[in-house]
Amino acid sequence: MSQYTAPIRDMQFVMRELAGLDEVAKLPGCEEVSADLVDAILDEANKFASGVLAPLNRIGDQEGAKWDNGDVRTAPGWKDAYKQFAEAGWTALACEPEFGGQGLPKLVATAVMEMWKSANMAFSLCPMLTSGAIEAVTLRGTDEQKAAYLPKMVSGEWTGTMNLTEPQAGSDLAAVRTRAEPQPDGTYRIFGQKIFITYGEHDMTDNIVHLVLARLPDAPEGVKGISLFVVPKFLLNADGTPGARNDVHCVSIEHKLGIHASPTCVLAFGDHGGAIGTLVGEENRGLEYMFIMMNEARFAVGMEGVALSERAYQHALAYAKDRVQGTEMGVRGGPKVSIIHHPDVRRMLMSMKSQTEAMRALAYVVAAANDAAHRDPDAAVRAENQAFVDLMIPVVKGWSTENSIDVASTGVQVHGGMGFIEETGAAQHLRDSRITTIYEGTTAIQANDLIGRKTAREGGVTIKALIAEMRGVVAQLGEHGGDEAFVAIRKSLESGIASLEAAVEYVLATYGKDIKAASVGSVPFLKLLGIVAGGWLMARAALVSSMRIAEGSSDEFYKTKIVTARFYADHILPQAQALSYSVVNGAAGALALDEAQF
Amino acid sequence: MSQYTAPIRDMQFVMRELAGLDEVAKLPGCEEVSADLVDAILDEANKFASGVLAPLNRIGDQEGAKWDNGDVRTAPGWKDAYKQFAEAGWTALACEPEFGGQGLPKLVATAVMEMWKSANMAFSLCPMLTSGAIEAVTLRGTDEQKAAYLPKMVSGEWTGTMNLTEPQAGSDLAAVRTRAEPQPDGTYRIFGQKIFITYGEHDMTDNIVHLVLARLPDAPEGVKGISLFVVPKFLLNADGTPGARNDVHCVSIEHKLGIHASPTCVLAFGDHGGAIGTLVGEENRGLEYMFIMMNEARFAVGMEGVALSERAYQHALAYAKDRVQGTEMGVRGGPKVSIIHHPDVRRMLMSMKSQTEAMRALAYVVAAANDAAHRDPDAAVRAENQAFVDLMIPVVKGWSTENSIDVASTGVQVHGGMGFIEETGAAQHLRDSRITTIYEGTTAIQANDLIGRKTAREGGVTIKALIAEMRGVVAQLGEHGGDEAFVAIRKSLESGIASLEAAVEYVLATYGKDIKAASVGSVPFLKLLGIVAGGWLMARAALVSSMRIAEGSSDEFYKTKIVTARFYADHILPQAQALSYSVVNGAAGALALDEAQF
Repeated sequence: MSQYTAPIRDMQFVMRELAGLDEVAKLPGCEEVSADLVDAILDEANKFASGVLAPLNRIGDQEGAKWDNGDVRTAPGWKDAYKQFAEAGWTALACEPEFGGQGLPKLVATAVMEMWKSANMAFSLCPMLTSGAIEAVTLRGTDEQKAAYLPKMVSGEWTGTMNLTEPQAGSDLAAVRTRAEPQPDGTYRIFGQKIFITYGEHDMTDNIVHLVLARLPDAPEGVKGISLFVVPKFLLNADGTPGARNDVHCVSIEHKLGIHASPTCVLAFGDHGGAIGTLVGEENRGLEYMFIMMNEARFAVGMEGVALSERAYQHALAYAKDRVQGTEMGVRGGPKVSIIHHPDVRRMLMSMKSQTEAMRALAYVVAAANDAAHRDPDAAVRAENQAFVDLMIPVVKGWSTENSIDVASTGVQVHGGMGFIEETGAAQHLRDSRITTIYEGTTAIQANDLIGRKTAREGGVTIKALIAEMRGVVAQLGEHGGDEAFVAIRKSLESGIASLEAAVEYVLATYGKDIKAASVGSVPFLKLLGIVAGGWLMARAALVSSMRIAEGSSDEFYKTKIVTARFYADHILPQAQALSYSVVNGAAGALALDEAQF
Repeated sequence: MSQYTAPIRDMQFVMRELAGLDEVAKLPGCEEVSADLVDAILDEANKFASGVLAPLNRIGDQEGAKWDNGDVRTAPGWKDAYKQFAEAGWTALACEPEFGGQGLPKLVATAVMEMWKSANMAFSLCPMLTSGAIEAVTLRGTDEQKAAYLPKMVSGEWTGTMNLTEPQAGSDLAAVRTRAEPQPDGTYRIFGQKIFITYGEHDMTDNIVHLVLARLPDAPEGVKGISLFVVPKFLLNADGTPGARNDVHCVSIEHKLGIHASPTCVLAFGDHGGAIGTLVGEENRGLEYMFIMMNEARFAVGMEGVALSERAYQHALAYAKDRVQGTEMGVRGGPKVSIIHHPDVRRMLMSMKSQTEAMRALAYVVAAANDAAHRDPDAAVRAENQAFVDLMIPVVKGWSTENSIDVASTGVQVHGGMGFIEETGAAQHLRDSRITTIYEGTTAIQANDLIGRKTAREGGVTIKALIAEMRGVVAQLGEHGGDEAFVAIRKSLESGIASLEAAVEYVLATYGKDIKAASVGSVPFLKLLGIVAGGWLMARAALVSSMRIAEGSSDEFYKTKIVTARFYADHILPQAQALSYSVVNGAAGALALDEAQF
């Protein structure tokens, strides 16, 4: 069976040496965040992730969630694990202290979240969706809504859901048709069907708080006519306890490729007179509120990419060290060796490892910038950090998740024939990862956001600043003189940055006058930015490691990091050029055919 | 539900214009192969594939094969479909006329095989394994074995299997432990356990003919001590009919990620006194015989890559034309459009289409060379073609299958959220494709064969000849002057060839002195050769199409082909440079870590 242990050493390194944990700890509200506290949190989270959640991952996949006449039974052990999770306070980690949260910085919460998602992605979705609902109510809810729902959701007593998608409204939320009819008492009756509702029904808590997009009777067409409502599964009694059953029911759950233990529900609202809900914020601004939360949710799904890659890597590494097959290459008749000795297995493992570390580095750096964007006392610093976060969220989401599919698939390959047998567990990571490039906005949606709102609309200011910062790292690498690894890293990073810059120029020149041509290159552009940003941070990691070694550290971690950064430079970063070429040259061929010619 | 129609127009184009069907038809034994005959065969095969096999693909996935106390029940409809398949003569297509076969050239049989594999990959494995067994007995069997087994296998009355792998002997067949004890009557008693035996047990035929690798008591260690045996499920009566049950039993079947309908069996030989078998060919030469068949089997698995890509493409294309979501990009408030209008969906479809066509082109060209290698009267021509086939078989196998995983995954992405729902069927192609890079030799094994036996050992003679041929196409492209598409294709192909050449030089210079360093780059090298060879053939396809248009053809197919070739040049071929870079520069970083540092 697949084991999981959190990569605490790398997490600490990235938090401290790349993401600036010390700086984050100086931000207002973060004064209690000491290195010791962070270490203690990571240790406790690791115990829970490896000891409680990881062992349930396989049984969750095998048994799945089961629908039974409107109820949903979670997999064996799930309910108890959730109870432990809430009681240990993990649901409250990053929430506002006002409602019972612990208010930890996003940087720290991100490392902890990675563990949940590595250990058991299907489980992690329940608290993740609840976090989104908490944020919506915190930001735009009435005082009554906050008082009624937040303490219970922060404590994990109740969970939350997001109800956006309908059969005709997937990526295009303008097409939402669910109706909300105002009632004389100020509440609304909701009618409609929502699909793809994660943990829309389950047996782990006494109540479920649904956040639902719906249209008022007189609402304008399109995206500007959608409002947001709170619709609890059980209406609340005067004392705040769950009372009468509300008219929202789980009609069915989906049979999916992966995350079997996470029930994906079809919810019917109002089949028996109307589901009672209350308005969040103002009328017709529901989509805008959703977008506020979107960054959070997209970042979290990006972390699934990091987390699944880490899990798949650990799984493959353990197998490669254990499985004996063949002799050392070039040694005929020698003793049998474990397959980690074979060069291609080595290449696959290094590919998985180096990409996972690069993705983690980028995600944590963005998390730290998010903390600064929210907490720094200087408005200019907040704005600068927010711009960086806005630019990179689609990359963390799109690049990490696209990579995770490849990394998990490589993990299957390392296992050879055993990888195709479900019992081994390697295939589950591939199946689970396959949703991450789709939900919370497909990679194309991330990429459109990236080239449009995040790049072209601001004339490339933020991305150019980032490129300038990257060039600074190239200069530092140059100071290393003849060290072979640093020469290789520098050469590849410099070339990658040039490729990125050419693509940025193309997007800036093309977006306004030919949005279709620019959009053909949007996904390659997103991957390009991810790969080069990963190379930039791996180069920074190598520089720090070199410094620590020069200072006298004998920690093997630093030597390993330099090798890993070099592998990334030799095997991953060179893809930048091909992606840039496709961005700059790829529109005409992609758009030339009529629909009928396909 | 997913439909399938054979891409007959492209198949015909590739056969005639790229693979030289006319030349193949002139080979001895192929005199009856007229264009009309080929068209008739393709039409009939398409009817069977789309009408009988394709509709069973989904139910096969859902129901799978079921083990019951040693018996294996195939999925509903399977047995009847197999009966129809055999009665229609499809099992005999490429077999020797001497034993009831139709002796058609491999080029034609390849197009037909593609259809079976697109329509229903799990089904296709049964005749595919039988073909391997037929070939083994044809090439090395005794006259008695040939008479007893071949007519029944060629007619499809009985099926065949290949028994190589054991728990401790996956890729490393030197570790085979199954024993064969000679008996006074000239037969052998076989004892041991074989795993991963495709269609090792099933209910579709009266007998199953197992070909089994085993060791004689006095056999040398390693690969030179393995012999090959025929072990039928039912021993034959004097009149050739199945008689007493032999001591080979299916102990269990695997629960796999994909190809659920293809039973993957654990077979126990000799638990009740010994399974009776007869020796094929000479003692201790079993592995050598297996290698003779290996090219055939590897090519067939490569065709699975082509076929699954085609199926995934058709599936995604149908969805993209049907699914209405959003408005035309850049047109606010316009009418809703089908998603094929969205540039990134277009890019994904073109990527699937162009790679599938490139893979088909390469596979068919190799199939035609195989016909020449076997049938040409001129020994020098035979040898030249055989060298090309030997070089390219690992590429057809490794490159097409690696691509098919990406293509099938892209197909899921085109479907958005529906792609993750099993009911849609898109995910099945991804799950099915995931085995193809593993069985019949992993991609790394193909790649080692490619850089070692097929490139370094002969000093790169064949690959250099191929590069010279590619350069000839670059020159032809240059004669097109300013035509934008041809300029783009030429530029990209020329650059790709240069990348390939650099990698070839590296492999030739490195293999002999540092096999590990060369091997780190083996898989990137294989992909590189595949990508550039695909670009070469897509460029040839564009040139032919341009010529047909110049001759007055108004067939839209030719215009589409030029666009598709251009897309390949802009989006796929540029990867060549990154792969070449990894081959040439990637060894040090990949091999630097000690096992303990992972």
